[in-house]
Amino acid sequence: MNVGIIGANGYSGVELIRLLHQHPFVQLKYLASHSSSGKLISEQYPHLQGIIEDRIGELDINEAASKIELMFFATPSGVSKDLIPAFLEKGITCIDLSGDFRLKDGTIYEKWYKNAKASDENLQNATYGLPEIFREEIIGSTLIANPGCYPTATLLGLAPALNNGLISGENIVIDGKSGVSGAGRKASLGTHYGEINENMKAYKLGSHQHIPEIEQIISHLSGTDHPITFSTHLVPMTRGILCTIYADLKIDTTTGELLTQYEEYYQNNFFVRIRPLDVWPATKEVLGSNYCDIGLKVEERTNKLIIVSVIDNVVKGAAGQAVQNMNLLNGWAEETGLTFSPVYP
Amino acid sequence: MNVGIIGANGYSGVELIRLLHQHPFVQLKYLASHSSSGKLISEQYPHLQGIIEDRIGELDINEAASKIELMFFATPSGVSKDLIPAFLEKGITCIDLSGDFRLKDGTIYEKWYKNAKASDENLQNATYGLPEIFREEIIGSTLIANPGCYPTATLLGLAPALNNGLISGENIVIDGKSGVSGAGRKASLGTHYGEINENMKAYKLGSHQHIPEIEQIISHLSGTDHPITFSTHLVPMTRGILCTIYADLKIDTTTGELLTQYEEYYQNNFFVRIRPLDVWPATKEVLGSNYCDIGLKVEERTNKLIIVSVIDNVVKGAAGQAVQNMNLLNGWAEETGLTFSPVYP
Amino acid sequence: MNVGIIGANGYSGVELIRLLHQHPFVQLKYLASHSSSGKLISEQYPHLQGIIEDRIGELDINEAASKIELMFFATPSGVSKDLIPAFLEKGITCIDLSGDFRLKDGTIYEKWYKNAKASDENLQNATYGLPEIFREEIIGSTLIANPGCYPTATLLGLAPALNNGLISGENIVIDGKSGVSGAGRKASLGTHYGEINENMKAYKLGSHQHIPEIEQIISHLSGTDHPITFSTHLVPMTRGILCTIYADLKIDTTTGELLTQYEEYYQNNFFVRIRPLDVWPATKEVLGSNYCDIGLKVEERTNKLIIVSVIDNVVKGAAGQAVQNMNLLNGWAEETGLTFSPVYP
Amino acid sequence: MNVGIIGANGYSGVELIRLLHQHPFVQLKYLASHSSSGKLISEQYPHLQGIIEDRIGELDINEAASKIELMFFATPSGVSKDLIPAFLEKGITCIDLSGDFRLKDGTIYEKWYKNAKASDENLQNATYGLPEIFREEIIGSTLIANPGCYPTATLLGLAPALNNGLISGENIVIDGKSGVSGAGRKASLGTHYGEINENMKAYKLGSHQHIPEIEQIISHLSGTDHPITFSTHLVPMTRGILCTIYADLKIDTTTGELLTQYEEYYQNNFFVRIRPLDVWPATKEVLGSNYCDIGLKVEERTNKLIIVSVIDNVVKGAAGQAVQNMNLLNGWAEETGLTFSPVYP
Repeated sequence: MNVGIIGANGYSGVELIRLLHQHPFVQLKYLASHSSSGKLISEQYPHLQGIIEDRIGELDINEAASKIELMFFATPSGVSKDLIPAFLEKGITCIDLSGDFRLKDGTIYEKWYKNAKASDENLQNATYGLPEIFREEIIGSTLIANPGCYPTATLLGLAPALNNGLISGENIVIDGKSGVSGAGRKASLGTHYGEINENMKAYKLGSHQHIPEIEQIISHLSGTDHPITFSTHLVPMTRGILCTIYADLKIDTTTGELLTQYEEYYQNNFFVRIRPLDVWPATKEVLGSNYCDIGLKVEERTNKLIIVSVIDNVVKGAAGQAVQNMNLLNGWAEETGLTFSPVYP
Repeated sequence: MNVGIIGANGYSGVELIRLLHQHPFVQLKYLASHSSSGKLISEQYPHLQGIIEDRIGELDINEAASKIELMFFATPSGVSKDLIPAFLEKGITCIDLSGDFRLKDGTIYEKWYKNAKASDENLQNATYGLPEIFREEIIGSTLIANPGCYPTATLLGLAPALNNGLISGENIVIDGKSGVSGAGRKASLGTHYGEINENMKAYKLGSHQHIPEIEQIISHLSGTDHPITFSTHLVPMTRGILCTIYADLKIDTTTGELLTQYEEYYQNNFFVRIRPLDVWPATKEVLGSNYCDIGLKVEERTNKLIIVSVIDNVVKGAAGQAVQNMNLLNGWAEETGLTFSPVYP
Repeated sequence: MNVGIIGANGYSGVELIRLLHQHPFVQLKYLASHSSSGKLISEQYPHLQGIIEDRIGELDINEAASKIELMFFATPSGVSKDLIPAFLEKGITCIDLSGDFRLKDGTIYEKWYKNAKASDENLQNATYGLPEIFREEIIGSTLIANPGCYPTATLLGLAPALNNGLISGENIVIDGKSGVSGAGRKASLGTHYGEINENMKAYKLGSHQHIPEIEQIISHLSGTDHPITFSTHLVPMTRGILCTIYADLKIDTTTGELLTQYEEYYQNNFFVRIRPLDVWPATKEVLGSNYCDIGLKVEERTNKLIIVSVIDNVVKGAAGQAVQNMNLLNGWAEETGLTFSPVYP
Repeated sequence: MNVGIIGANGYSGVELIRLLHQHPFVQLKYLASHSSSGKLISEQYPHLQGIIEDRIGELDINEAASKIELMFFATPSGVSKDLIPAFLEKGITCIDLSGDFRLKDGTIYEKWYKNAKASDENLQNATYGLPEIFREEIIGSTLIANPGCYPTATLLGLAPALNNGLISGENIVIDGKSGVSGAGRKASLGTHYGEINENMKAYKLGSHQHIPEIEQIISHLSGTDHPITFSTHLVPMTRGILCTIYADLKIDTTTGELLTQYEEYYQNNFFVRIRPLDVWPATKEVLGSNYCDIGLKVEERTNKLIIVSVIDNVVKGAAGQAVQNMNLLNGWAEETGLTFSPVYP
C-alpha cells in the first residue's frame, strides 16, 4: 500500500518516516512540506542518509492522489482542515495528526485554537483515533483525528476508572509534564537549549488547547460533563510525557484491586502496560515505542486515586498512534510494524 | 563568628561551604564527616581547590565545641537527634538540615521516617525555620529545624492564600517535581546518569516523609486539620524544585487580585518574588540563589487556584535557608551573604 | 536458531535483548547474570514488561549448551576468558563483547587490563569482529572478539586512509568522547547524575585499555608499528561516541578527493555512511542504530586530515556489532534485523 | 565608579549584570540593546526580578558618556569597531568582548570574520586582555580586547610550556569542546533543544575564527610562527569549555616535573588552578566562576604533552575576564568581586 506525508519536515513527520520505513505492508511514496520543498529529506535530517533519499515536494493534490491511497497530515493547526476535503473527495483515506478534527463542536475549536473550524460535516465524519477506546469506530472510517499527546496519556490513564464508575468525573486534576519535542522543530527562544536545559517550567496554565479534547472524551466515558483542572510543564528532555492524574474515588478500594481492574480492561490491548503494585512508570521506559505505561496509587488518607501515565509523545502521542490507526483501517494486526522494544538506556 | 558543619561531604554540606565562604560575618572552623574523615574537602570536591583547603575530621564534640559557636547538621535522617543534645548542653546553637526535629509529634516522625524520634523536650524546643512564616519564633531560638525542600516551596506557595482564608485547607493537591541533587551524593542505581537522563518518573507516591511536615504547617496556617494529596517526581536536572499546587477557592476572585494579595503578604520578604499575570516561574530562574518565585492562576472553570512555586532545593530548600536562619539568630540582616543573583543561563 | 546471553543485566546485555527480539531468525533462549540471578528481566528493566518476561538464571554451562547454539558474552573484563573454553568444547559459537580475546599478545592484555590473559591458543583462534575490515576472517570463525567502542569508531574512521596510504601511521592523535552508558550500569560516584550532568571531563589519559587494541589494528592496516596518542572524555549524554582523529597527510589532496576515496572504500558496507563536504556527523544521528557516520576535513594549513567518526556505543560499539557478526557467521545478510533507522530527535 | 553595557540582552551581557551586581566598587548605570530596547531587563530575564529593574535603552552615545566612565561591549562581531572610536574620544574606557580588536592584522580579521576591520590605529592601541599573560600591558590601557572563550582556555593551558620552551610551537593540535551558551541566545535550529540534547557534534572544522587569535598569541609566547590544527565540538551542556591540547615535547620530562613548572608559572595568579598528578579537570568544577583549571599528562609512548584546560565560557571566557580586566585597569585587586566559589553540583 502506498502512503504519503504532508508536513514531512517536522518532528511528527520524521517519526512517521522512521516507523513507515520499518512497516512491512506500506511504501512511502509522497513527501510534502512547504518549508523545505525541493530538498532531500536527508539534508534536513542527516540521520536518514542512505535510508530515505527522497526529495520533499511542494504539495500537489492531483499528483499526490495519483500516487498514494492514504495520507498522513503532520501539519500545524489550521492547515489540514483546508486540505483534507479535497483528499476525501478523491477517495484518499486521511489521518490527521493536528487538532483540526478532534473536537465535535467547531465553536469550541475556534475558542481554544483561535483558528477557523473545519466544516461541521467533516467534523462529524471524523473519528477520534484512540484505538483502545474507539477501536470499532475507527475500523471503516475514512478520516481519523489522531489524538493529542496529553489527551492520549490522560485518557488511557482515566478510561478504566471512569468506565467502571470507580471515580467521579468531577474534580479531576491533571498535572502534565512534557519533553520539548512536543513544541515542534521550529526555532524559538522557548526551545533554545540554554533556556530549557537544567530547567523546568509551567506554561499555558488553564488555556492549553488539549483541555476541551480531554473533556469531550471524559464526558463520553463517564456520561457526565465536568470541567477539568489541567496544567502543563516543560521538562528538560526531548521525548516523553508523564501525566499525574488525581481523581476522587467513589468507592472504598485498594491499589491492588484497581490494578486488577485496569489489567482486565486493557487485557487485549497490545500497547497498554499496567505496572505492578508500588511501581510507577518512567518516560524512558517507553522511549521510541508505542507503549503507554500506567501505575496506580490509592491515597487512602484523602480517598483519591493517583494515576501516573507515560507515553513517548512523538510515538503513541503522534506518529505511532497514527500508524496503529492505519493498521486498524486496513484490517492488519494493530501492532504491525510497532512491535519493537523501547530504547533503553 | 566561628561556625562548623557536620556532614560536610554531602551536597547540602558542600553548598553550606560555598555560601559560608561568601558570608561577611562568619568563619568556617570545623568540618566533620564520617564517610570522608581525614581527607581534604578539595579532594572530595575539586571545585574547592585553592578556596577551601581544610581537612575533614571525624566528629569530636569537645573539640568542636571549643572552636565554634554555631553548628550546621547536614546529616542523614536519624543522626542529628543523637548529636544535638550534647551540643545544646555546651551552649552551641544548632541548625539541623535533616528532618529529625521538624515534626512536633514524635510518633508521626517514627511512622514516616522509620527511625527513633528525638526527645519530646527537644522537639518542643525546636523552631521550624521557615523565616517567612516563623521569623519571630526563630529569633532567640537555639535549635532550628530547617525545613525540607518540598515543604519550603509548597508552604511559601500556600501561606498567603491560607492565611487570608482564600482557599480551603481541604482537598489540596500538591504535585512536586525535583532535580536529582535532592537524593544526595550517595551512588545508587536510582541516581545513575543512564537511568535519569532523558527520563521523568514518579516516586514514593503517598509515602513521602515530607507529607506530615507540610500538613503540620498547613494546620498552623489554616487552623484546620486536613490530609493533603502529595506526589513527587524526579526530573532530569540537578538542582531545582517546582511544586504545582491545586486548591479550592472559597471566594470569587481573579488572578490579578490574588497576585496583589500575595505581593502584600510578602512585601518585606527579600527572598520571595511574585511573578506578574500570566507569567509562571522556572526553576532555572532561581538556580544557585535563595529566592522562591511564585506564579498564580485562577482556573475559573473549576474555581481552583493553581499555584506554581520554585526554589533551588540545595539553597532555599537546604543550605541557603540555613544561612538565612543563622542571620536571623544573630540579628544580622536576613539576606546577609545571600544577595547574589541566580546563575542564568 | 537459539541463542543466549551471559551478562544479561548490563547495558550491553539489555541492548542485545532489544536487538535479538527484533531479529527474524533467532530465539533468545538463555539469560544468565550473576548479580540478578532469579529475577525477571522485566523487574530489572521495566521497559521490557510484556515484551520479554524471561527469568534470569545463574550460569549453568550444561544447561546452556543444551538450549542454545550461539552465546553472547556481555561480561566484565576477565570473566569470559574463563568461560568460553568450555563453550567452545561443546561446539557453541561464542561472541565475546569484552576485551578478553581482542589482543593477540596476551602479555599486552595483562599490562593494560591488569587481569590474567586467556590461553594463547584461544587468543590465536579468536577473530577480531570488525566486519568492515575482517569480514572474510569472521565467516567461519567460532570465537569472535567483538571490538571495543572507541576502537570501532576510530578504526572505521582511519581504515580507508591507512589502507590507501594517504596518511602516516606515525603521529596519529585520537580525541575520544563518550556518553556515560559506556561505563555500564553499576552505580558509582563517577556515574552519579549530579556529577555528570552539565559537566564534561577527561579521564584515563594515556592509560585507556583500548589503546593497544587500536594500535594492533592500525599496525595491520598500515604495516607499520607506531604508538598513538589517545585521550578519552566523558560527555553528559547516555549514548554515543564521537572520535576526532588527527593524522599527517602523506599526499597533497583535498577534502573532496578523500571523500570519494572513503565512499569507494565503504561502498558495499551497509553500516558506514560518509557525510558530504563540510558536513560533519553528530552522535544523535546514529542513536539506537548500527550506523557509523564519518566526516572529513583536510586542514591545508597544517596538512593534517581531521576525521570525525560517530557511533552509538551500545549498538555499533557493542550489541549491534555483535548481531552483525552473528549474521555473518550464519551466512545471513549482514544487516538482518538491523535495518531500522536511528531514533531522532 | 559608574559603568555600562551595550548588548545587555545576550548571554555575555546578562552575565556581566550578575557579576557587576556583586562587585563592591561599581554601579551599573547604563544598559543598551538594539533588540530589546524599551523593555525591562527583568522582562527579558525573569531571574533578575527584584534584583535589577532597569530598563534597556537604545544606544545614545552622548547620554551614555554623561553617565558612565567605562563601557562593556557585549555585541556581535562587527558592531563594536564602529562604536568604540566615539567612546574613546569622549574619554570612556572600553572593554570589548567581541573579536573586533583582538587581531593586530586587520586583513586577517577580514578573512576569518568576513567583516570590515577596525582602524589600524585602534587595532594597535587595543590590548589583548588575557591578564595572566599581558597583565602589565593591560594596566594603563584604554581599550581592552577581551579574549575569546576557546583562546582563553587554550592559551592558559599552553603558556607555561611555550614560555619555558618545553614544547614545540609546531604540530600543536587543539580539540575544543563547548557548551551551547557560546552560540548566544539567538534562536536557531542549531541551538534547538531537540537537536542538542543527547547529542555531540563537530562544527566549523578548520574555519573557526578563533584560530588566528590563538596563533597570534602562540607566536608571541614561542617566538615562532606555526599554524595550529584546531577543531570545535558542541556538547550537550549550557556552560563550559574543555580544550584538550596535544603538543610535541622538546625535552625528556615527567608529568610531575611539568606540574611543578606550571604551578610556579601561575603562582601569583588567583584564577588558575593546577590539578595534581593523575587528576584532570571537569567543566562543572569551574561553573559560574572565573577559574581556569588545568591538568597535564606526559604521554611517554609518543613524547607528547596532553594539556586539559577548562573554563566557564560565560565567565573566564567572557564576562568574568572582562571584570578582571576592569579591576586591573582601575588598580583594584584583580579578583575583586570574583572570589566566589563555583556552583557545584
